[in-house]
This record gives sequence, C-alpha cells and structure tokens, in this order.
Amino acid sequence: MPKKIAGPEIERLIQLLSRLPGLGPRSGRKAALALLKRRQELLVPLAQALANAAEKLVECPSCGNIDTVSPCTICADPRRDRSLIVVVEEIGDLWALERAGVVSGLYHVLGGHLSPLDGIGPERLNIGKLIERAAPPVKEVLLALNTTVEGQSTAHYLTEQLQGRGLTVTRLAQGVPMGGELDYLDEGTLAAAIKSRRTL
Amino acid sequence: MPKKIAGPEIERLIQLLSRLPGLGPRSGRKAALALLKRRQELLVPLAQALANAAEKLVECPSCGNIDTVSPCTICADPRRDRSLIVVVEEIGDLWALERAGVVSGLYHVLGGHLSPLDGIGPERLNIGKLIERAAPPVKEVLLALNTTVEGQSTAHYLTEQLQGRGLTVTRLAQGVPMGGELDYLDEGTLAAAIKSRRTL
Repeated sequence: MPKKIAGPEIERLIQLLSRLPGLGPRSGRKAALALLKRRQELLVPLAQALANAAEKLVECPSCGNIDTVSPCTICADPRRDRSLIVVVEEIGDLWALERAGVVSGLYHVLGGHLSPLDGIGPERLNIGKLIERAAPPVKEVLLALNTTVEGQSTAHYLTEQLQGRGLTVTRLAQGVPMGGELDYLDEGTLAAAIKSRRTL
Repeated sequence: MPKKIAGPEIERLIQLLSRLPGLGPRSGRKAALALLKRRQELLVPLAQALANAAEKLVECPSCGNIDTVSPCTICADPRRDRSLIVVVEEIGDLWALERAGVVSGLYHVLGGHLSPLDGIGPERLNIGKLIERAAPPVKEVLLALNTTVEGQSTAHYLTEQLQGRGLTVTRLAQGVPMGGELDYLDEGTLAAAIKSRRTL
C-alpha cells in the first residue's frame, strides 16, 4: 500500500539532498530528518547559507576560482607571491592544496582536463587566460595536474604553449606518498620513485 | 601558512553541511563543491527547498509528525484506518514503517522515550495527546517502540496508562529478522524467537 508520507516540499528536500555526493536515498532521508528536527539550529541557517551562496557566487575573472567575492579571496590576498601560478584542474584541487598550506603563490583553475574523446579541446578549458597571465611578474608556472593520462597530456600541451615566455614551467614531484606501502603501489609510481631517487 | 581560502559564505556553507548526519568535514567540502559547480541544477533548488521547508514546517497537532501541511499528510488521508494508532518514538521510525508500507492506520510520534537518567519523564513526551486520542473510533494502539531498555520501559508505562479504556494495546512481534543469521544474533532475540515460536 504505497501512500504519500509527507508533503511535496519534504519529498523534494529528500530528493535533492540525496543528490549530494556522499549521500544516497537513505542518508538523504536521514539528513532531511535531522534538518526537520533541528529547524532553528540547522535548517534555517543552511537555507540562508545556500541562498547567500547562490546569490553571490562568482567566477574569479583572473584565476577561474569560484568565490563570493571578485577577484577571489586568494587573488585579492596581498601576501600571496605573484611570481608563482599553480595550475590545477578543479577547484577541489585548489582547496586540497590550500588545506595543506603549501602554496605561497596564486592559482589558475582550468575547469577540467583535455579529453579529445569527450570532445574537450583547449578552447573548452580556461587556458587562454592562463597564457595571458603568463607574463611578468610571473616567473614560474607549476602544473599541479592529476597524474592521470588526461592530466599529463594536458600538462604536456600547456608546457608547449608556455614555452618561450621567459618563465619556468614545473610540475609536482612524483614518488611514494607519505604513509604509502610499497606493496600496494602501482608500477608507474614505483618507477617514478626510483627514477627520481634522492641522495641521503 | 594558514590563509583564508574563500569568502565567509562558502566557509559557512561547508561548516553547516558538515553537520548533516552522514557528512563530516571532508564530505561537507565535497558537497559544498558539488553545489558550487552545479548552481542552477542543485544549489538554487536546494536553497529553495530548504527555505520552503523552513517556512512551512509544522508539527501535526494530532499525531506529532512534522510536515508542511496541518494536519499532516497521513492524518489527512481518508483511506487510513482510524481504528488503529501506531505509536513510534521518532519521525524516522514513522518513515521506516511507511517505506515498508505495512501500516494501514494512523501514527502517534512520542518524540523520544522515557529516560529518567536524562531527566526525560512522561511530561516531556507527546503522551497526553495520545491518551486523549485513545478513544473511539480507536480500537487498537500498537506500540512500535524500539526494543531497547528505554523503548521497552516506555511501552510498559504506556500500557499502564492505556489500560481500562476498552481498547487493545499491542506491540511488534520479536524474533529473528529476515535474512538474520542465528550465529550473529544476541541471546535476547534468540530467547524471544524461541518463546514465540509458531507452528508450521
């Protein structure tokens, strides 16, 4: 006997929450329930935060990051080293590097990687703007792209485009990750770690 | 070098999303990212759905369920059997029973269970209203409470309160769950399953 459990607004809320990464139909319901039960502490503030974000979100005209201010918080920070641009595929990569707190410079978000099979050529990525930015005071462009086939072929393409502009193009070191057990690593990583071995 | 990554609106969004059950700081960030990247398909509709819910949510004056209509969708459904009230601890329990589609009657949500150690006595639960409802046309009150110590002592208390009103008070059957392996079941469940064994 399938009957309607709740009003359409609650059904819709569950449906949308279920589409968040990390949540499914079951955990979407749990999240909706938590929101219904904690209306003042959670539901109302979250509704407000989302509305604020929806209203204010803007792509940074300089680096392609998404923020509520333009230029973005990072590009606007006067303490950042303007001689270094770190190129990443997605905003999530930028956040990961920021959490690690290891980048002194600015970023450039491509919005993906080259993928000819999916019809994603250079014109679909935020590359033109990168070439524009690759001029003094910028001295180094660090390609912090994923070590996937697509990421690496994107890095190769960018290296060619950035050549002859009087700046250094670098990439992340490859090797054994911290806490990594050799037994579980793929051959590519092991080969890279051997090839780039360091003297102690 | 800890720096600000994004505007305060995005930080706040991540913080609130991280407080949803099933999400933590890491998955809260992932959810925020998905929302930022899918503004029109996800962020805006979710903001709207939450705002709608926040505005319209109301506790059903009859059964204690939370819905966007009053009385709630279930209490208002004319196809429901008004001679049966199923008492549950939380709305999540109501939803679980509705998903199973096994309840023909109405519900009553207590909002928790008796817990003297936490200072939760009968007056803190939605019990007075249940006693009021326990009159014709109601013929049966099914106590679908958790089989925890608190759930069972709450059931015991309610049974006493509901006595002498000319209606049947029932509880869920206890036994081996579907797909349950005997080897993994606790002694209490096994004892209940043996005690209530059925003739084939």
